[in-house]
Amino acid sequence: MIENALQFSHTLLAEVLTDHDHVVDATMGNGNDTVFLANKVQPHGKVYAFDVQKQALDKTKQRLLEDGLTEQTKIIFDGHENLKNYLAENEPIKAGIFNLGYLPKSDKQLITTPTTTKQALETLLNHLVSKGRILLVSYYGHAGGKEELTMLDNYCQKLPQEQYNVLRYQFINQKNRPPILFCIEKNVTIIFLKSSSFYNGSILLFLKSIIL
Amino acid sequence: MIENALQFSHTLLAEVLTDHDHVVDATMGNGNDTVFLANKVQPHGKVYAFDVQKQALDKTKQRLLEDGLTEQTKIIFDGHENLKNYLAENEPIKAGIFNLGYLPKSDKQLITTPTTTKQALETLLNHLVSKGRILLVSYYGHAGGKEELTMLDNYCQKLPQEQYNVLRYQFINQKNRPPILFCIEKNVTIIFLKSSSFYNGSILLFLKSIIL
Repeated sequence: MIENALQFSHTLLAEVLTDHDHVVDATMGNGNDTVFLANKVQPHGKVYAFDVQKQALDKTKQRLLEDGLTEQTKIIFDGHENLKNYLAENEPIKAGIFNLGYLPKSDKQLITTPTTTKQALETLLNHLVSKGRILLVSYYGHAGGKEELTMLDNYCQKLPQEQYNVLRYQFINQKNRPPILFCIEKNVTIIFLKSSSFYNGSILLFLKSIIL
Repeated sequence: MIENALQFSHTLLAEVLTDHDHVVDATMGNGNDTVFLANKVQPHGKVYAFDVQKQALDKTKQRLLEDGLTEQTKIIFDGHENLKNYLAENEPIKAGIFNLGYLPKSDKQLITTPTTTKQALETLLNHLVSKGRILLVSYYGHAGGKEELTMLDNYCQKLPQEQYNVLRYQFINQKNRPPILFCIEKNVTIIFLKSSSFYNGSILLFLKSIIL
Protein backbone atom coordinates (compact mmCIF):
# COMPACT_ATOMS: atom_id res chain seq x y z
CA MET A 1 0.00 0.00 0.00
CA ILE A 2 1.13 3.55 -0.71
CA GLU A 3 1.99 5.22 2.60
CA ASN A 4 -0.87 7.29 4.01
CA ALA A 5 -0.37 10.91 5.10
CA LEU A 6 0.63 10.00 8.66
CA GLN A 7 3.08 7.30 7.59
CA PHE A 8 4.62 9.52 4.92
CA SER A 9 5.03 12.40 7.41
CA HIS A 10 7.26 10.12 9.48
CA THR A 11 9.18 8.95 6.40
CA LEU A 12 9.93 12.56 5.46
CA LEU A 13 11.03 13.34 9.03
CA ALA A 14 13.21 10.22 9.32
CA GLU A 15 15.08 11.24 6.15
CA VAL A 16 16.48 14.38 7.79
CA LEU A 17 16.66 13.79 11.55
CA THR A 18 19.88 13.06 13.41
CA ASP A 19 20.70 12.33 17.05
CA HIS A 20 21.41 15.96 17.95
CA ASP A 21 18.54 17.85 16.31
CA HIS A 22 16.08 20.17 18.03
CA VAL A 23 12.51 19.58 16.84
CA VAL A 24 8.94 20.66 17.63
CA ASP A 25 5.75 18.64 18.02
CA ALA A 26 3.19 21.43 17.77
CA THR A 27 0.23 19.15 18.57
CA MET A 28 1.08 16.48 21.11
CA GLY A 29 -2.28 14.68 20.99
CA ASN A 30 -1.82 11.07 22.02
CA GLY A 31 1.95 11.38 21.83
CA ASN A 32 2.56 9.39 18.65
CA ASP A 33 4.66 12.05 16.99
CA THR A 34 6.37 13.07 20.25
CA VAL A 35 7.58 9.51 20.88
CA PHE A 36 8.65 9.14 17.24
CA LEU A 37 10.62 12.40 17.32
CA ALA A 38 12.20 11.67 20.72
CA ASN A 39 13.43 8.33 19.40
CA LYS A 40 14.93 9.94 16.32
CA VAL A 41 16.83 12.74 18.08
CA GLN A 42 18.07 10.85 21.12
CA PRO A 43 20.44 11.06 22.91
CA HIS A 44 21.72 14.58 22.15
CA GLY A 45 18.65 16.26 20.60
CA LYS A 46 15.59 17.89 22.08
CA VAL A 47 11.84 17.72 21.43
CA TYR A 48 9.50 20.58 22.34
CA ALA A 49 5.97 19.15 22.55
CA PHE A 50 2.89 21.38 22.92
CA ASP A 51 -0.73 20.81 23.83
CA VAL A 52 -3.53 22.70 25.59
CA GLN A 53 -5.32 19.58 26.84
CA LYS A 54 -4.26 18.02 30.14
CA GLN A 55 -5.15 14.53 28.95
CA ALA A 56 -2.75 14.86 25.99
CA LEU A 57 0.10 15.73 28.35
CA ASP A 58 -0.73 12.87 30.75
CA LYS A 59 -0.92 10.31 27.96
CA THR A 60 2.29 11.51 26.30
CA LYS A 61 4.23 11.67 29.57
CA GLN A 62 3.25 8.12 30.34
CA ARG A 63 4.40 6.88 26.92
CA LEU A 64 7.71 8.75 27.16
CA LEU A 65 8.30 7.26 30.62
CA GLU A 66 7.60 3.76 29.37
CA ASP A 67 10.06 4.22 26.50
CA GLY A 68 12.74 5.99 28.55
CA LEU A 69 12.49 9.15 26.44
CA THR A 70 11.73 11.82 29.04
CA GLU A 71 15.21 13.36 29.16
CA GLN A 72 15.22 14.74 25.62
CA THR A 73 11.59 15.84 25.67
CA LYS A 74 10.18 19.10 26.99
CA ILE A 75 6.44 18.72 27.59
CA ILE A 76 4.74 22.12 27.39
CA PHE A 77 1.20 22.82 28.63
CA ASP A 78 0.55 25.77 26.31
CA GLY A 79 -0.73 26.57 22.81
CA HIS A 80 1.76 26.25 19.94
CA GLU A 81 1.09 29.91 19.05
CA ASN A 82 3.35 30.71 22.02
CA LEU A 83 6.23 28.65 20.63
CA LYS A 84 8.48 31.72 20.47
CA ASN A 85 8.43 31.94 24.30
CA TYR A 86 10.11 28.56 24.59
CA LEU A 87 12.85 28.69 21.97
CA ALA A 88 16.15 30.50 22.44
CA GLU A 89 16.90 33.37 20.06
CA ASN A 90 18.26 31.90 16.80
CA GLU A 91 17.88 28.36 18.16
CA PRO A 92 18.18 26.12 15.09
CA ILE A 93 15.16 23.85 14.58
CA LYS A 94 15.48 20.89 12.20
CA ALA A 95 11.84 19.85 11.96
CA GLY A 96 8.32 20.38 13.21
CA ILE A 97 5.06 18.51 12.94
CA PHE A 98 1.41 19.56 13.24
CA ASN A 99 -1.64 17.31 13.36
CA LEU A 100 -4.38 19.82 12.60
CA GLY A 101 -7.92 19.14 13.75
CA TYR A 102 -9.07 17.88 17.15
CA LEU A 103 -7.67 15.37 19.63
CA PRO A 104 -9.08 11.92 18.77
CA LYS A 105 -11.53 10.53 21.37
CA SER A 106 -11.82 13.99 22.91
CA ASP A 107 -13.81 17.24 22.80
CA LYS A 108 -14.49 17.96 19.11
CA GLN A 109 -15.16 21.62 19.93
CA LEU A 110 -11.54 22.11 20.89
CA ILE A 111 -9.81 22.37 17.52
CA THR A 112 -6.70 23.97 16.10
CA THR A 113 -7.48 27.27 14.39
CA PRO A 114 -6.12 29.15 11.35
CA THR A 115 -4.80 32.09 13.41
CA THR A 116 -2.89 30.11 16.02
CA THR A 117 -1.65 27.55 13.48
CA LYS A 118 -0.29 30.36 11.31
CA GLN A 119 1.42 32.00 14.30
CA ALA A 120 3.17 28.76 15.24
CA LEU A 121 4.12 28.08 11.62
CA GLU A 122 5.68 31.51 11.19
CA THR A 123 7.76 31.13 14.34
CA LEU A 124 8.91 27.70 13.22
CA LEU A 125 9.89 28.96 9.76
CA ASN A 126 12.06 31.64 11.37
CA HIS A 127 13.99 28.97 13.26
CA LEU A 128 14.10 26.33 10.54
CA VAL A 129 17.57 25.37 9.26
CA SER A 130 18.49 24.59 5.64
CA LYS A 131 17.15 21.14 4.67
CA GLY A 132 14.82 21.32 7.68
CA ARG A 133 11.22 20.20 7.20
CA ILE A 134 7.83 21.13 8.63
CA LEU A 135 5.09 18.52 8.25
CA LEU A 136 1.43 19.48 8.53
CA VAL A 137 -1.20 16.75 8.54
CA SER A 138 -4.50 18.52 7.91
CA TYR A 139 -7.77 16.83 8.92
CA TYR A 140 -10.61 18.90 7.54
CA GLY A 141 -13.81 16.85 7.90
CA HIS A 142 -14.90 18.60 11.14
CA ALA A 143 -16.58 22.01 11.55
CA GLY A 144 -13.89 24.65 11.03
CA GLY A 145 -11.57 22.19 9.31
CA LYS A 146 -12.05 23.53 5.78
CA GLU A 147 -11.22 27.10 6.83
CA GLU A 148 -7.96 25.93 8.35
CA LEU A 149 -7.09 23.86 5.26
CA THR A 150 -7.80 26.84 2.97
CA MET A 151 -5.56 29.11 5.05
CA LEU A 152 -2.81 26.52 5.02
CA ASP A 153 -3.06 25.84 1.30
CA ASN A 154 -2.96 29.56 0.43
CA TYR A 155 -0.13 30.21 2.86
CA CYS A 156 1.95 27.33 1.47
CA GLN A 157 1.38 28.30 -2.16
CA LYS A 158 2.72 31.79 -1.44
CA LEU A 159 5.94 30.69 0.27
CA PRO A 160 8.81 31.96 -1.94
CA GLN A 161 10.29 29.15 -4.03
CA GLU A 162 13.80 30.58 -3.61
CA GLN A 163 13.58 29.73 0.10
CA TYR A 164 11.14 26.85 0.32
CA ASN A 165 9.96 23.76 -1.50
CA VAL A 166 6.36 22.82 -0.61
CA LEU A 167 4.84 19.42 -1.31
CA ARG A 168 1.14 18.55 -1.06
CA TYR A 169 0.48 14.80 -0.70
CA GLN A 170 -3.17 13.90 -1.08
CA PHE A 171 -5.38 10.89 -1.79
CA ILE A 172 -8.00 12.22 -4.18
CA ASN A 173 -10.59 9.47 -4.63
CA GLN A 174 -11.54 8.79 -1.00
CA LYS A 175 -15.01 9.80 0.18
CA ASN A 176 -14.09 9.81 3.87
CA ARG A 177 -11.73 12.76 3.39
CA PRO A 178 -8.41 11.36 4.65
CA PRO A 179 -5.95 14.01 5.90
CA ILE A 180 -3.84 16.00 3.44
CA LEU A 181 -0.12 16.22 4.10
CA PHE A 182 1.94 19.35 3.46
CA CYS A 183 5.73 19.33 3.70
CA ILE A 184 7.61 22.62 3.76
CA GLU A 185 11.33 22.16 3.19
CA LYS A 186 13.83 24.97 3.61
CA ASN A 187 16.24 25.22 0.70
CA VAL A 188 19.97 25.26 1.09
CA THR A 189 21.09 28.90 1.12
CA ILE A 190 23.81 29.58 -1.42
CA ILE A 191 25.59 32.90 -1.14
CA PHE A 192 28.29 34.21 -3.42
CA LEU A 193 30.56 36.87 -1.99
CA LYS A 194 31.27 39.40 -4.72
CA SER A 195 34.48 40.74 -3.33
CA SER A 196 36.98 39.84 -0.65
CA SER A 197 36.27 43.23 0.92
CA PHE A 198 33.02 41.71 2.18
CA TYR A 199 35.01 39.19 4.13
CA ASN A 200 34.87 40.28 7.75
CA GLY A 201 33.65 38.95 11.07
CA SER A 202 30.25 40.64 11.19
CA ILE A 203 29.26 39.47 7.70
CA LEU A 204 30.27 35.91 8.58
CA LEU A 205 28.20 36.07 11.74
CA PHE A 206 25.20 37.26 9.69
CA LEU A 207 25.68 34.48 7.11
CA LYS A 208 25.95 31.89 9.85
CA SER A 209 22.69 33.03 11.37
CA ILE A 210 20.75 32.69 8.11
CA ILE A 211 22.42 29.48 6.93
CA LEU A 212 21.94 27.73 10.25
CA MET B 1 15.71 17.44 -0.90
CA ILE B 2 12.22 15.98 -1.09
CA GLU B 3 12.06 13.69 -4.14
CA ASN B 4 10.63 15.40 -7.21
CA ALA B 5 7.76 13.86 -9.21
CA LEU B 6 10.07 11.86 -11.50
CA GLN B 7 12.20 10.52 -8.66
CA PHE B 8 9.17 9.62 -6.56
CA SER B 9 7.55 7.81 -9.51
CA HIS B 10 10.56 5.47 -9.56
CA THR B 11 10.46 5.04 -5.77
CA LEU B 12 6.81 3.97 -5.96
CA LEU B 13 7.57 1.55 -8.80
CA ALA B 14 10.63 0.08 -7.07
CA GLU B 15 8.50 -0.72 -4.00
CA VAL B 16 6.34 -3.19 -5.92
CA LEU B 17 8.39 -4.57 -8.83
CA THR B 18 9.93 -8.04 -8.85
CA ASP B 19 12.09 -9.94 -11.35
CA HIS B 20 9.16 -11.60 -13.09
CA ASP B 21 6.66 -8.76 -13.54
CA HIS B 22 5.15 -7.57 -16.80
CA VAL B 23 5.07 -3.77 -17.02
CA VAL B 24 4.27 -0.99 -19.50
CA ASP B 25 6.14 2.19 -20.39
CA ALA B 26 3.39 4.07 -22.21
CA THR B 27 5.68 6.93 -23.26
CA MET B 28 9.18 5.79 -24.11
CA GLY B 29 10.64 9.25 -24.72
CA ASN B 30 14.37 9.19 -24.11
CA GLY B 31 14.17 5.75 -22.56
CA ASN B 32 14.73 6.69 -18.90
CA ASP B 33 11.70 4.82 -17.62
CA THR B 34 12.16 1.92 -20.04
CA VAL B 35 15.71 1.27 -18.83
CA PHE B 36 14.62 1.65 -15.20
CA LEU B 37 11.75 -0.82 -15.63
CA ALA B 38 13.86 -3.33 -17.60
CA ASN B 39 16.42 -3.33 -14.80
CA LYS B 40 13.76 -3.92 -12.17
CA VAL B 41 11.98 -6.84 -13.90
CA GLN B 42 15.00 -8.69 -15.30
CA PRO B 43 15.61 -11.51 -15.95
CA HIS B 44 12.13 -13.09 -16.03
CA GLY B 45 9.85 -10.08 -16.55
CA LYS B 46 8.85 -8.10 -19.60
CA VAL B 47 8.59 -4.41 -20.50
CA TYR B 48 6.25 -3.16 -23.23
CA ALA B 49 7.50 0.27 -24.31
CA PHE B 50 5.51 2.55 -26.65
CA ASP B 51 6.24 5.65 -28.67
CA VAL B 52 5.12 7.22 -31.94
CA GLN B 53 8.41 9.02 -32.63
CA LYS B 54 11.20 7.20 -34.41
CA GLN B 55 13.88 9.13 -32.52
CA ALA B 56 12.47 7.91 -29.19
CA LEU B 57 12.75 4.29 -30.33
CA ASP B 58 16.28 4.76 -31.66
CA LYS B 59 17.50 6.42 -28.49
CA THR B 60 15.86 3.83 -26.22
CA LYS B 61 17.10 0.86 -28.26
CA GLN B 62 20.64 2.18 -28.03
CA ARG B 63 20.43 2.58 -24.25
CA LEU B 64 18.95 -0.90 -23.79
CA LEU B 65 21.72 -2.38 -25.93
CA GLU B 66 24.40 -0.61 -23.90
CA ASP B 67 22.91 -1.94 -20.66
CA GLY B 68 22.21 -5.47 -21.97
CA LEU B 69 18.47 -5.12 -21.41
CA THR B 70 17.04 -5.86 -24.86
CA GLU B 71 15.83 -9.37 -24.11
CA GLN B 72 13.13 -8.41 -21.62
CA THR B 73 12.01 -5.32 -23.52
CA LYS B 74 9.52 -5.11 -26.35
CA ILE B 75 9.95 -1.83 -28.21
CA ILE B 76 6.70 -0.86 -29.96
CA PHE B 77 6.40 1.80 -32.66
CA ASP B 78 2.76 2.63 -32.00
CA GLY B 79 0.56 4.88 -29.87
CA HIS B 80 -0.21 3.69 -26.33
CA GLU B 81 -3.93 3.91 -27.15
CA ASN B 82 -3.39 0.62 -29.02
CA LEU B 83 -1.95 -1.12 -25.98
CA LYS B 84 -4.72 -3.73 -26.02
CA ASN B 85 -3.39 -5.08 -29.34
CA TYR B 86 -0.11 -6.06 -27.73
CA LEU B 87 -1.18 -7.67 -24.45
CA ALA B 88 -2.52 -11.20 -24.16
CA GLU B 89 -6.08 -11.60 -22.88
CA ASN B 90 -5.98 -11.39 -19.05
CA GLU B 91 -2.22 -10.83 -19.09
CA PRO B 92 -1.39 -9.60 -15.59
CA ILE B 93 0.36 -6.22 -15.56
CA LYS B 94 2.12 -5.10 -12.38
CA ALA B 95 2.84 -1.50 -13.28
CA GLY B 96 2.70 1.19 -15.92
CA ILE B 97 4.19 4.64 -16.35
CA PHE B 98 3.21 7.67 -18.43
CA ASN B 99 5.19 10.85 -18.95
CA LEU B 100 2.49 13.14 -20.29
CA GLY B 101 3.43 16.10 -22.44
CA TYR B 102 5.92 16.22 -25.31
CA LEU B 103 9.25 14.55 -25.96
CA PRO B 104 12.00 16.82 -24.58
CA LYS B 105 14.21 18.42 -27.27
CA SER B 106 11.67 17.46 -29.90
CA ASP B 107 8.56 18.71 -31.75
CA LYS B 108 6.38 20.49 -29.18
CA GLN B 109 3.35 20.10 -31.45
CA LEU B 110 3.44 16.34 -30.97
CA ILE B 111 1.91 15.89 -27.53
CA THR B 112 0.01 13.22 -25.66
CA THR B 113 -3.73 13.92 -25.71
CA PRO B 114 -6.63 13.37 -23.26
CA THR B 115 -8.43 10.87 -25.52
CA THR B 116 -5.50 8.58 -26.25
CA THR B 117 -4.13 8.85 -22.71
CA LYS B 118 -7.52 7.81 -21.32
CA GLN B 119 -7.75 4.85 -23.73
CA ALA B 120 -4.34 3.56 -22.68
CA LEU B 121 -5.13 4.11 -19.01
CA GLU B 122 -8.39 2.16 -19.23
CA THR B 123 -6.69 -0.79 -20.93
CA LEU B 124 -3.95 -0.77 -18.30
CA LEU B 125 -6.46 -0.68 -15.42
CA ASN B 126 -8.18 -3.76 -16.87
CA HIS B 127 -4.91 -5.68 -16.75
CA LEU B 128 -3.57 -4.30 -13.45
CA VAL B 129 -3.08 -6.83 -10.64
CA SER B 130 -3.77 -6.26 -6.95
CA LYS B 131 -1.07 -4.01 -5.42
CA GLY B 132 -0.13 -2.98 -8.98
CA ARG B 133 0.57 0.70 -9.62
CA ILE B 134 0.16 3.11 -12.51
CA LEU B 135 2.28 6.25 -12.38
CA LEU B 136 1.39 9.33 -14.42
CA VAL B 137 3.78 12.26 -14.52
CA SER B 138 1.78 15.16 -15.94
CA TYR B 139 3.61 18.12 -17.50
CA TYR B 140 1.06 20.83 -18.21
CA GLY B 141 2.96 24.02 -19.06
CA HIS B 142 2.61 23.53 -22.85
CA ALA B 143 -0.42 24.26 -25.08
CA GLY B 144 -2.92 21.45 -24.51
CA GLY B 145 -1.29 20.43 -21.24
CA LYS B 146 -3.95 21.85 -18.95
CA GLU B 147 -6.76 20.03 -20.76
CA GLU B 148 -4.96 16.72 -20.32
CA LEU B 149 -4.27 17.44 -16.64
CA THR B 150 -7.95 18.31 -16.04
CA MET B 151 -9.09 15.08 -17.70
CA LEU B 152 -6.63 13.08 -15.66
CA ASP B 153 -7.52 14.76 -12.37
CA ASN B 154 -11.27 14.25 -12.92
CA TYR B 155 -10.78 10.67 -14.06
CA CYS B 156 -8.63 9.82 -11.04
CA GLN B 157 -10.99 11.44 -8.55
CA LYS B 158 -13.83 9.28 -9.84
CA LEU B 159 -12.01 5.94 -9.61
CA PRO B 160 -13.95 3.85 -7.06
CA GLN B 161 -12.18 3.77 -3.70
CA GLU B 162 -13.17 0.14 -3.14
CA GLN B 163 -10.91 -0.80 -6.06
CA TYR B 164 -8.28 1.92 -6.19
CA ASN B 165 -6.23 4.24 -4.05
CA VAL B 166 -5.16 7.40 -5.90
CA LEU B 167 -2.39 9.71 -4.71
CA ARG B 168 -1.64 13.18 -6.11
CA TYR B 169 1.90 14.38 -5.34
CA GLN B 170 2.44 18.02 -6.17
CA PHE B 171 4.82 20.89 -5.42
CA ILE B 172 2.54 23.87 -4.92
CA ASN B 173 4.77 26.94 -4.60
CA GLN B 174 6.81 26.65 -7.82
CA LYS B 175 6.24 29.21 -10.56
CA ASN B 176 7.74 27.07 -13.31
CA ARG B 177 4.94 24.50 -12.98
CA PRO B 178 6.85 21.29 -12.23
CA PRO B 179 5.03 18.07 -13.23
CA ILE B 180 2.31 16.63 -11.01
CA LEU B 181 2.52 12.95 -10.15
CA PHE B 182 -0.52 10.67 -9.89
CA CYS B 183 -0.24 7.14 -8.56
CA ILE B 184 -3.17 4.74 -9.02
CA GLU B 185 -2.82 1.63 -6.88
CA LYS B 186 -5.14 -1.35 -7.23
CA ASN B 187 -6.43 -2.57 -3.89
CA VAL B 188 -6.14 -6.13 -2.73
CA THR B 189 -9.37 -7.94 -3.58
CA ILE B 190 -10.84 -9.68 -0.54
CA ILE B 191 -13.60 -12.16 -1.18
CA PHE B 192 -15.51 -14.13 1.44
CA LEU B 193 -17.19 -17.32 0.30
CA LYS B 194 -20.54 -17.57 2.05
CA SER B 195 -20.97 -21.29 1.74
CA SER B 196 -18.90 -24.31 0.85
CA SER B 197 -21.40 -25.02 -1.94
CA PHE B 198 -19.69 -22.21 -3.85
CA TYR B 199 -16.47 -24.14 -3.81
CA ASN B 200 -16.00 -25.53 -7.28
CA GLY B 201 -13.52 -25.26 -10.12
CA SER B 202 -15.25 -22.60 -12.18
CA ILE B 203 -15.64 -20.23 -9.23
CA LEU B 204 -11.97 -20.64 -8.34
CA LEU B 205 -10.98 -19.91 -11.94
CA PHE B 206 -13.12 -16.77 -11.83
CA LEU B 207 -11.59 -15.65 -8.53
CA LYS B 208 -8.10 -16.28 -9.84
CA SER B 209 -8.77 -14.12 -12.88
CA ILE B 210 -9.93 -11.11 -10.85
CA ILE B 211 -7.39 -11.45 -8.05
CA LEU B 212 -4.48 -11.81 -10.46
